[in-house]
Amino acid sequence: MAKDKAPRRPRAEPPKGFRDYFGAEVTERKAMLDTIAGVYHRYGFDPLETSAVETVEALGKYLPDVDRPNEGVFAWQDEDQDWLALRYDLTAPLARVAAQFRNDLPSPYRRYAMGPVWRNEKPGPGRFRQFYQCDADTVGSASVAADAEICAMLSDALEETGIPRGDYVVRVNNRKVLNGVMEVAGVLDPLDPERFAHERGIVLRAIDKHDRLGDAGVRALLGEGRLDESGDFTKGAGLSAEQAEIVMGFMSARRDSGAATVARLAELTTGSAIGIEGVEELETIAALLDAQGYGPDRIVIDPSVVRGLGYYTGPVYEAELTFEILDEKGRKRQFGSVSGGGRYDDLVKRFTGQSVPATGVSIGVDRLLAALRAKGRVHTDTRGPVVVTVMDRDRMADYQAMAGELRRAGIRSEVYLGNPKNFGNQLKYADHRASPVAVIQGSAEAGRGAVLLKDLALGAKIAAQATVEEWKSQPAQIEVGRADLVAAVRRMMGQG
Amino acid sequence: MAKDKAPRRPRAEPPKGFRDYFGAEVTERKAMLDTIAGVYHRYGFDPLETSAVETVEALGKYLPDVDRPNEGVFAWQDEDQDWLALRYDLTAPLARVAAQFRNDLPSPYRRYAMGPVWRNEKPGPGRFRQFYQCDADTVGSASVAADAEICAMLSDALEETGIPRGDYVVRVNNRKVLNGVMEVAGVLDPLDPERFAHERGIVLRAIDKHDRLGDAGVRALLGEGRLDESGDFTKGAGLSAEQAEIVMGFMSARRDSGAATVARLAELTTGSAIGIEGVEELETIAALLDAQGYGPDRIVIDPSVVRGLGYYTGPVYEAELTFEILDEKGRKRQFGSVSGGGRYDDLVKRFTGQSVPATGVSIGVDRLLAALRAKGRVHTDTRGPVVVTVMDRDRMADYQAMAGELRRAGIRSEVYLGNPKNFGNQLKYADHRASPVAVIQGSAEAGRGAVLLKDLALGAKIAAQATVEEWKSQPAQIEVGRADLVAAVRRMMGQG
Repeated sequence: MAKDKAPRRPRAEPPKGFRDYFGAEVTERKAMLDTIAGVYHRYGFDPLETSAVETVEALGKYLPDVDRPNEGVFAWQDEDQDWLALRYDLTAPLARVAAQFRNDLPSPYRRYAMGPVWRNEKPGPGRFRQFYQCDADTVGSASVAADAEICAMLSDALEETGIPRGDYVVRVNNRKVLNGVMEVAGVLDPLDPERFAHERGIVLRAIDKHDRLGDAGVRALLGEGRLDESGDFTKGAGLSAEQAEIVMGFMSARRDSGAATVARLAELTTGSAIGIEGVEELETIAALLDAQGYGPDRIVIDPSVVRGLGYYTGPVYEAELTFEILDEKGRKRQFGSVSGGGRYDDLVKRFTGQSVPATGVSIGVDRLLAALRAKGRVHTDTRGPVVVTVMDRDRMADYQAMAGELRRAGIRSEVYLGNPKNFGNQLKYADHRASPVAVIQGSAEAGRGAVLLKDLALGAKIAAQATVEEWKSQPAQIEVGRADLVAAVRRMMGQG
Repeated sequence: MAKDKAPRRPRAEPPKGFRDYFGAEVTERKAMLDTIAGVYHRYGFDPLETSAVETVEALGKYLPDVDRPNEGVFAWQDEDQDWLALRYDLTAPLARVAAQFRNDLPSPYRRYAMGPVWRNEKPGPGRFRQFYQCDADTVGSASVAADAEICAMLSDALEETGIPRGDYVVRVNNRKVLNGVMEVAGVLDPLDPERFAHERGIVLRAIDKHDRLGDAGVRALLGEGRLDESGDFTKGAGLSAEQAEIVMGFMSARRDSGAATVARLAELTTGSAIGIEGVEELETIAALLDAQGYGPDRIVIDPSVVRGLGYYTGPVYEAELTFEILDEKGRKRQFGSVSGGGRYDDLVKRFTGQSVPATGVSIGVDRLLAALRAKGRVHTDTRGPVVVTVMDRDRMADYQAMAGELRRAGIRSEVYLGNPKNFGNQLKYADHRASPVAVIQGSAEAGRGAVLLKDLALGAKIAAQATVEEWKSQPAQIEVGRADLVAAVRRMMGQG
């Protein structure tokens, strides 16, 4: 490149759909994750941290059989022509680990994991291509006690992060019950499981959209299809009115008590072996939870829970926050789901050929954090550090010594390190930092062995405009002996 | 794919050069990072978390001008044909953020960041393609007080993680002094900075290799070149013997005190404006640190520190652990460097055209953790959870209630969720989990309102072989009333 030709400057921005997190955004999320990890750990779950990168073949699904399998995931070819990709969730890497270390891990293996995952999807408002997940899974237990345990743990985790009882509900259903209903409705043939798979997919998606589409919309999708407001037509499952009625009956099977709901589900699945098995599992889960005091104020059996993912094979569960918030248009709406999971007995089988029963939950970290913020349950010390200002640049060592003393006393503090010439800039800086106290020592104060302390919480309003003289005249300012620095700062911060 | 054709199974392994971290490996690293973050925070640094993915143009360097810029980084093209890549360090994203948010961030901006980075390099033993870094940087301060502060903070961070004073030293040098020496040696022309750039690169790399090559090897590289043991020839910088002598003199300029070292460096750079400026900066840094009590037992001026990266423009520093460990061949060697950094005033300029002074440090997380382990300074509670065994699968709710009581008392515990039929497997499981206490309640114990507690720390040796009867006969086993469960477990764990 010729020296006299200015190179094009790179754009100072992250890729589309990615963002940065600053200060309290980082520490608040960390505090929430630490709390959840504490709950998971107390339940006997061990941490696992896999790398961000997996082989595309290990990740498996999502990826169509194309030359460049870059659909839904961020993928690239390494020097050996193998395709690598960023993980899109924490479950696929767990399945790989469970297969790879099957002879070394305890069985059942309870593990938790938290970290970012990546989706190569169209970004939108509040929808990013990197986001955090926080999962707990039990691999190797066929017992629905494992599912019940995770529901109880999820309830505990939500309460410990600050969602009060009554503001959330964990809803539990069972894919087997749904399959039983499908069998009764004639869209599942136990002797030929592949038959009607397409129709069942449509039914599943229709139930999942009930919140948004209502009874009529779901009924349309179960039948011939649905014309939406924009004029687009979605083809339906082609069920007869009679068949559709059975599915609709399933969705409205929830009764006041778990026992009544289970009884209703038993009626709906009469004659289906898989359905009866599913109902019995729900009964066991409800009994286990009741015995431990997790009643319907926290965990309910709710047939309307489907969970989108195709790989669930038994119990499914989700946590919904039931309080209302104002949406972007100022309308009240329920906060909605912050967590979901279920039993997936076939994920490890991809690797080993042997079915390994597993169940687990994923908490949507960003949504839960947003909920906690909406409830005012995030308590961050938003105060910045004590700022030691620089009145005389030749005495930098003295200022550093003051900051050091404060730090050794456990008080966050820093020396102003910009150009000290304009004292107003130092005050603006302290203001920008949300500093609670500014420490000031000019030559006069130094001469008499003193420092000035300025209570910035009191003086914040005028800070931006003040001159040194005005500043010194503020009532929120006191002069103390240099030896009293730490004690006086502590008092001013309300820690005295 | 035809249904009767078995699909090829994916390999259950991570990509080459990646690995998984289990249990204590995760929590020990997290504890160390939390400690370091605490120190950084106390110094007024704010957390920043950027995403793993950046545009290749924002990352800049490392990347040769080729069609597929996949050298050294993991990169791929997105749907708009833009190249994206995983970050290879935490400094390049900081430079992007400092440019992007220059009007919003406080100035100076002190930030810390911790997280994985990725290098597309050949993996080797202990050398992975994903690893953690833990950085602190001050952007926007031209004052060497910022460099001194980071050296002091690095010293504090090492001590708080568990490296005792005397077992490490932070060594400080200045690129300007080195440039001054280059000028005196005639390989830097201040009026034409590009001239001799190639030769200076060779000199820099030669000095950086002094540990390994010794005086003779460095001297050869400063001159015509060096023939290594394998017969490969590395071309040298082509300096005359007289020129080389000046550079060698610089490398051996360290004296017993900082003042004496600085005086020697002043002699060596006489006549070079940049060299004199560099010596003065080192004097200021040494004085600031001395005044705060960071003497040569912690931080020293050492002209042999170069730091490889080309972008450093002023003070450079590194932390070396001085105690000896045994290497893989059983030979004693010094542990070596765990951290390094320096001043880089030109990184933000790439984006904005305006030079922004910055200085910062990066701690090699895995190396520091290895050092702490080597010193026995990592204290993890390696005990697993209390395991409540399942003697009677119909009373699962009772066992879950016991685990729940223990957890509410703050004791980590879990119910065995594998197939309970073979009790020996439950004991093996508890052993595998490093469980301190097993809780056992058969129908007999239940009938008299009691539970058996087994001290597994005492009984671990025979656990794998014991029958239920042998197990029950162990002296480390006691029967307590069901109501005393929590108190008795606590006593058995030594917490009573």
